Amino acid sequence: MTKYIYSFNEGSKEMKNLLGGKGANLGEMTKIGLPVPQGFTVSTEACNQYYEDGQKINKNIIDEVFEYLHILEKQIDKKFGDINNPLLVSVRSGSVVSMPGMMDTILNLGLNDQAVEGLAKQTENGRFAYDSYRRFIQMFGDVVLDIPKYKFDNVLDQEKEKNSIQLDTELTVENLKSIINEYKKLVKKETHKDFPQKPEEQLLMAIDAVFGSWNNTRAIVYRELNDIPGHLGTAVNIQSMVFGNMGETSGTGVAFTRDPSTGEKKLFGEFLMNAQGEDVVAGIRTPQPIAALKDTMSDVYEQFVNIAERLENHYKDMQDIEFTIEKGKLFFLQTRNGKRTAKAAINVAVDMVNEGIISKEEAILRIEPTQLDQLLHPTFKPEALENSEKITQGLPASPGAATGKVYFNAEDVVKAKEAGEKAILVRLETSPEDIEGMVSAEGILTARGGMTSHAAVVARGMGRCCVAGCGEVRVDEANKTFKVGNKIFKEGDWISLNGNTGAVYVGSVATQEAELTGNFGQLMEWADKFRTLKIRTNADTPRDAAVAMKFGVEGIGLCRTEHMFFDEERIIAVRQMIVSKNIKDRKVALDKLLPFQKNDFVGIYETMGELPVTVRLLDPPLHEFLPHNDEDIKVLSTQIGVEYNTLKETVEDLKEFNPMLGHRGCRLGITYPEIYEMQVKAIILAAIEVKTTKKLDIKPEIMVPLIGSEKELEIIKELIIKTVDALVKESGVEIEYQVGTMIEVPRAALTADAIAKHAEFFSFGTNDLTQMTYGFSRDDSGKFIGEYRKKEIFEKDPFQRLDQVGVGRLMEMAVDLGKKTRKDIKLGICGEHGGDPESIAFCHKLGLDYVSCSPYRVPVARMAAARAALQK
Amino acid sequence: MTKYIYSFNEGSKEMKNLLGGKGANLGEMTKIGLPVPQGFTVSTEACNQYYEDGQKINKNIIDEVFEYLHILEKQIDKKFGDINNPLLVSVRSGSVVSMPGMMDTILNLGLNDQAVEGLAKQTENGRFAYDSYRRFIQMFGDVVLDIPKYKFDNVLDQEKEKNSIQLDTELTVENLKSIINEYKKLVKKETHKDFPQKPEEQLLMAIDAVFGSWNNTRAIVYRELNDIPGHLGTAVNIQSMVFGNMGETSGTGVAFTRDPSTGEKKLFGEFLMNAQGEDVVAGIRTPQPIAALKDTMSDVYEQFVNIAERLENHYKDMQDIEFTIEKGKLFFLQTRNGKRTAKAAINVAVDMVNEGIISKEEAILRIEPTQLDQLLHPTFKPEALENSEKITQGLPASPGAATGKVYFNAEDVVKAKEAGEKAILVRLETSPEDIEGMVSAEGILTARGGMTSHAAVVARGMGRCCVAGCGEVRVDEANKTFKVGNKIFKEGDWISLNGNTGAVYVGSVATQEAELTGNFGQLMEWADKFRTLKIRTNADTPRDAAVAMKFGVEGIGLCRTEHMFFDEERIIAVRQMIVSKNIKDRKVALDKLLPFQKNDFVGIYETMGELPVTVRLLDPPLHEFLPHNDEDIKVLSTQIGVEYNTLKETVEDLKEFNPMLGHRGCRLGITYPEIYEMQVKAIILAAIEVKTTKKLDIKPEIMVPLIGSEKELEIIKELIIKTVDALVKESGVEIEYQVGTMIEVPRAALTADAIAKHAEFFSFGTNDLTQMTYGFSRDDSGKFIGEYRKKEIFEKDPFQRLDQVGVGRLMEMAVDLGKKTRKDIKLGICGEHGGDPESIAFCHKLGLDYVSCSPYRVPVARMAAARAALQK
Repeated sequence: MTKYIYSFNEGSKEMKNLLGGKGANLGEMTKIGLPVPQGFTVSTEACNQYYEDGQKINKNIIDEVFEYLHILEKQIDKKFGDINNPLLVSVRSGSVVSMPGMMDTILNLGLNDQAVEGLAKQTENGRFAYDSYRRFIQMFGDVVLDIPKYKFDNVLDQEKEKNSIQLDTELTVENLKSIINEYKKLVKKETHKDFPQKPEEQLLMAIDAVFGSWNNTRAIVYRELNDIPGHLGTAVNIQSMVFGNMGETSGTGVAFTRDPSTGEKKLFGEFLMNAQGEDVVAGIRTPQPIAALKDTMSDVYEQFVNIAERLENHYKDMQDIEFTIEKGKLFFLQTRNGKRTAKAAINVAVDMVNEGIISKEEAILRIEPTQLDQLLHPTFKPEALENSEKITQGLPASPGAATGKVYFNAEDVVKAKEAGEKAILVRLETSPEDIEGMVSAEGILTARGGMTSHAAVVARGMGRCCVAGCGEVRVDEANKTFKVGNKIFKEGDWISLNGNTGAVYVGSVATQEAELTGNFGQLMEWADKFRTLKIRTNADTPRDAAVAMKFGVEGIGLCRTEHMFFDEERIIAVRQMIVSKNIKDRKVALDKLLPFQKNDFVGIYETMGELPVTVRLLDPPLHEFLPHNDEDIKVLSTQIGVEYNTLKETVEDLKEFNPMLGHRGCRLGITYPEIYEMQVKAIILAAIEVKTTKKLDIKPEIMVPLIGSEKELEIIKELIIKTVDALVKESGVEIEYQVGTMIEVPRAALTADAIAKHAEFFSFGTNDLTQMTYGFSRDDSGKFIGEYRKKEIFEKDPFQRLDQVGVGRLMEMAVDLGKKTRKDIKLGICGEHGGDPESIAFCHKLGLDYVSCSPYRVPVARMAAARAALQK
Repeated sequence: MTKYIYSFNEGSKEMKNLLGGKGANLGEMTKIGLPVPQGFTVSTEACNQYYEDGQKINKNIIDEVFEYLHILEKQIDKKFGDINNPLLVSVRSGSVVSMPGMMDTILNLGLNDQAVEGLAKQTENGRFAYDSYRRFIQMFGDVVLDIPKYKFDNVLDQEKEKNSIQLDTELTVENLKSIINEYKKLVKKETHKDFPQKPEEQLLMAIDAVFGSWNNTRAIVYRELNDIPGHLGTAVNIQSMVFGNMGETSGTGVAFTRDPSTGEKKLFGEFLMNAQGEDVVAGIRTPQPIAALKDTMSDVYEQFVNIAERLENHYKDMQDIEFTIEKGKLFFLQTRNGKRTAKAAINVAVDMVNEGIISKEEAILRIEPTQLDQLLHPTFKPEALENSEKITQGLPASPGAATGKVYFNAEDVVKAKEAGEKAILVRLETSPEDIEGMVSAEGILTARGGMTSHAAVVARGMGRCCVAGCGEVRVDEANKTFKVGNKIFKEGDWISLNGNTGAVYVGSVATQEAELTGNFGQLMEWADKFRTLKIRTNADTPRDAAVAMKFGVEGIGLCRTEHMFFDEERIIAVRQMIVSKNIKDRKVALDKLLPFQKNDFVGIYETMGELPVTVRLLDPPLHEFLPHNDEDIKVLSTQIGVEYNTLKETVEDLKEFNPMLGHRGCRLGITYPEIYEMQVKAIILAAIEVKTTKKLDIKPEIMVPLIGSEKELEIIKELIIKTVDALVKESGVEIEYQVGTMIEVPRAALTADAIAKHAEFFSFGTNDLTQMTYGFSRDDSGKFIGEYRKKEIFEKDPFQRLDQVGVGRLMEMAVDLGKKTRKDIKLGICGEHGGDPESIAFCHKLGLDYVSCSPYRVPVARMAAARAALQK
């Protein structure tokens, strides 16, 4: 038979999965001999059993609970429900990963109308006894019986008012008895039952409530946000009570062994005398800083400082400790690794290395790479945020905080920016035409699209804050307004976006810039020593490239050429090229574009020095570059001198049912080789120029997108070689270069051995590969992906975290097949997943040479790559 | 060193790949001792070498040509270019597969100004010698020098006119000399060079021309249409001349050993005395039927009949023979398996089995399964077609011939049909809303969409003729006209469609109905004995099912439920269901649909008897069922009593960027379980009803579309089981049923082991699987697939023939993984490929249990499955 219960002295910190974090640490503290009130833990396996049994605690578990209760009674020589010497316990949830959404603590369980009298007699402290009973009914009523807390508060407040009392501590025994009476009436009224008097019944109800709270809405949302799987379950800790409310030599408090917001090495915390549980954080009385304990109870303080240090050394990490002093005697109720800001995390890790507590490897493994994001982008000032009204919630598409006036198209944003205003671009969904607006905006808000929609990808690339897929926002672009519920926002209204959480606020919320401390650099340096994956960036402009260089990048893994096409000076030539009805006209237009493209690459090469730069040839379908409404078509018709009807017909002809699966990528290179020819010329001419003028030995990597068949690459590679050869011959300057391909179409992965014959490198385009492997488009999946998360079909959005089972299987095949043909083939990833730590770990395991991510993600990727190497 | 040349006595029919069909058969005839003028063959390897060398005949090959020429000279004791006894040869192309697009024959090569005199002297026949020279210059000028043939004809006609001559045979030696003189002038004028007088030069130029013609446009187009790979190359046959133009005891002709259009066993052919080469088909003199030879040269006739029979028995197939009689002596110039109509093919095959010439297995292997299509659909009367003007060419999307008046929307077609008219539905592209129009139309013509576009798939399913993706057709649906070039067609104009070729004709072309002969049934019976694959059909209605039953189907592999939704009576309830804002309203609408769906299935079950029926749950995105233009939305708004603005917003909300990759398939079942619940109810209630009333034991197979993750299927299967259990319990009738899934998303194939845990069968949806594996949509690929075919990136449209390397690899994985989890998992295919013989062979190899194709394709599939089993 399964053992469901463990006494604290059976536990240890290694048993976290079974006992939850809290239970495991209570066991550990018991083991190393700290003063811990004794008790036992109902395991997470019992929780899972509870759900298997249809949310019922089965008889085996009940029997075991009482068996262990009996052992506890013997240990501390008290008896559950005894009138003279009652055993009282606390009941607390304790999941494997700390989860604030779960059920709160219940203290003083075991009291009833008789036991409270016994307790009063035994402790010779009636006030204490009745105060404890009063608290118990209130907590049990709130947490287990689901009676709104304010109703209990009302009773308490009325009693205090009636007797002109300010502080809870001033309540007399008579006051408390009266309150208890009223509480019981309240319970009867709300539940149609009397407050349970049997301690055994109280206990089982409390355990049931803890298990039940594992699946309450708050807990589920928290788990989703933090990638905690639902099957872990929670444990329940049942611990004999010690009392901080037994008078002025009793108290309770919490403390961190270091400052959790800065990481500074000094005890940080607070306590309250003659208080219990929630009083410290409830804010009724102001708690004292922990240092003040030194003055009032110096020996207790000294003991506390010693044990706190011992705990930190024992756990080798900053500890978050709960303690209670009962009549001058110190007890530890909980210790755990303290939560901390990113800044504190870095400082604590580096300090602990310097203090010799942990190794550099451990320091790196201590930092959650995604945390670093906080340090790289602006954030809201916490105090400003407190007074702000959140209006809705979208996807945290690109981190940072932004505030500005609402504008509904790129042009208006650019104008506002020129007029010195801060602007937020609000769109149903962005398209490449919005690029200039996105550059000028402080932040971007879209109603549609997921984490890898156009808005999200581009915003992350440029480090611009973005909230995407905000389903409640109804944008009316024509009238320049948007609605959330009944609230209407007009052009010029202020809003603020939190790109880390997806929250949208009314009005302007003050922001603060990020700071990079010295320890940050130190940690990165260590990380670079351990990692084997190279880190490249996805950068389309010298500006992006410069940001990535600042963050320590080692090359460009993806330089998209199409964003360059939207520049005002060029777009007309681009459009002329597209509507050309023959090669000759198309070449004339392409010749106009060539010098622009060349200069783009010159700028990028100069920024990157001799680091490798992978340039992807044109990828999006041509219709993305054309105007779509009649008015814009008319304007274009005048601009390029093509009759309106012909132009309109061309625009209609180019429309596609499924642009994602349409005439794009290398398919353009096959049907219009002259476009790719121009781009290759630009890439090579720029390399020749930089080699000649700056003496930099540029070795471009030319990447062909959307290859699905060997033959496609063979044809395009031939074109590339022919084009390069001519330029090299003409200039007399040798340029080393490579030709490779994206692996982003499933068929490319399946036939990678054939494709590798013509490819010197593979770069996994996991955005498209994910779309095609799953068969859903990132722009359309918003409609069902929420439901998929809720039903746990996905544990995580596959556009954020690489789907290792499906997409990863294709990558594995491609790696194996590719290496079979070409042993030294260079392998990288340039999809969005290149910035996700777990996906980076997978890439490390696959044996890729590099990951490429957006510039702002580079430090995260460096850290993640180091962790992957260390965890191997 | 490679041997490039083979003398006829070195060849045999097994050497077809090296010598081409013609060369191999000349070798074979030589081997079995028939009278064949001797010569040699330049191999296909020489052709490939020629292209490798940049379209040059290299020195090795040239040397070998002259070496073999020398051997030939010795064999027949004549000398190339000799003035007294010149060796003359014919030069003819001969590819591995017979190809009409290739270079024509050149006869009499080796003649020049001197040799012609020698020939005249030697044969004592000046007229013959100069006629031969005249013909040679004309053929060489046309074929090798690229001088338009009509220019030679002009010269000839002028000479005849000048001398009042009717027939070529009346031309005198002087006339011929004068013509030769004019021909040489013409050559000089056109090529700026004299007509080549050196026989060696003539020969090499002719070989070069044959090799060059391998890649002329006609040849390329023919290869594309007939799936002949471009790398095969052509051989060149150089054969000593025999002359049919040496007087009235000479002649030339062609004959089939059986009637090529009916298959009747009797010699069929014609001949012309005193004639050479093309004269027979040129139509200047009327040839005589082969039987007439009996009267004029009975011993030659008898010899011919004997050898013809010998050849048929030797090749065990109907032969197409070319022969020449030189001064009463019979020579065989070529024999090959004769081309024949589908009807003849079947009759010949069955007759030959009955005659004991071939086995039943051979008979089946003799029939190209796709040929059968001709027999199952109406065709144009050949004589009617001759006088018709073809206006454009689309894709042969669904076979048959149709003629009717042009209408531009479904409603007008329905009205026309009701008025007793024949109608052709012309659309930019059809959508599910057009179904009724498609049913009522004789044929369908679309401007967009490929071989598996909506129009094509639906038309094939209902056996309706369809020409799709006709790029030159510009449809103006608003004005009810379409343009091809400058021609405008209005509503009510007659056009005709050939669904077998994709041709579109002006006016009404008379059609004839298909006939199924008794031999057809016989052959099918034999096929059924040999095949192991079961043949199912894709049928959505009792009518489709009945057609398939007529063709001998063994079950339904895909019954789509969505087409049923478009019926006038139901569509309102469907739309009500879609725009419902909550489950309650949606269930009300679904309850209205339930009886309709149930009756659909009752009809299908009753038609199929106890054969298995696989029903696919709803697949297309919901917006396909909603109107899209404002007017229709207004109408709907009144119909269902939902405010216009709300409705408009819903329609907008449901729009998708990439519907193919959107909210469809099982994703609908996850987000709106009540829809699938209703469908499952309909499937099971229908089964209960038919079991109760007809005593038929119906075992429905419920198929879930678009599964990509194990968990999706797990959730939906649970819903299905719950729904079925309730109905079974309520009715007290046990229904056996299976739950399975489409494998149409790459990820489903990659994780088939996990998915098989919940699936009792897999059905490969290779349409979608191809789209997602290649990453292009069938509706959009039209823009580049032509170029892809031209550049040989695809040898065949992957939507027509399964891509075995990529998509096939995924299928193989899915089969292996699926069987690993569930040994007896049932495996089928229901994509369009289920009707393609080569793809069927692949499915056989993979070990699938069945293929499912459109009803009219069933006989083709039965035959293909038999061939696959026999070829194994």
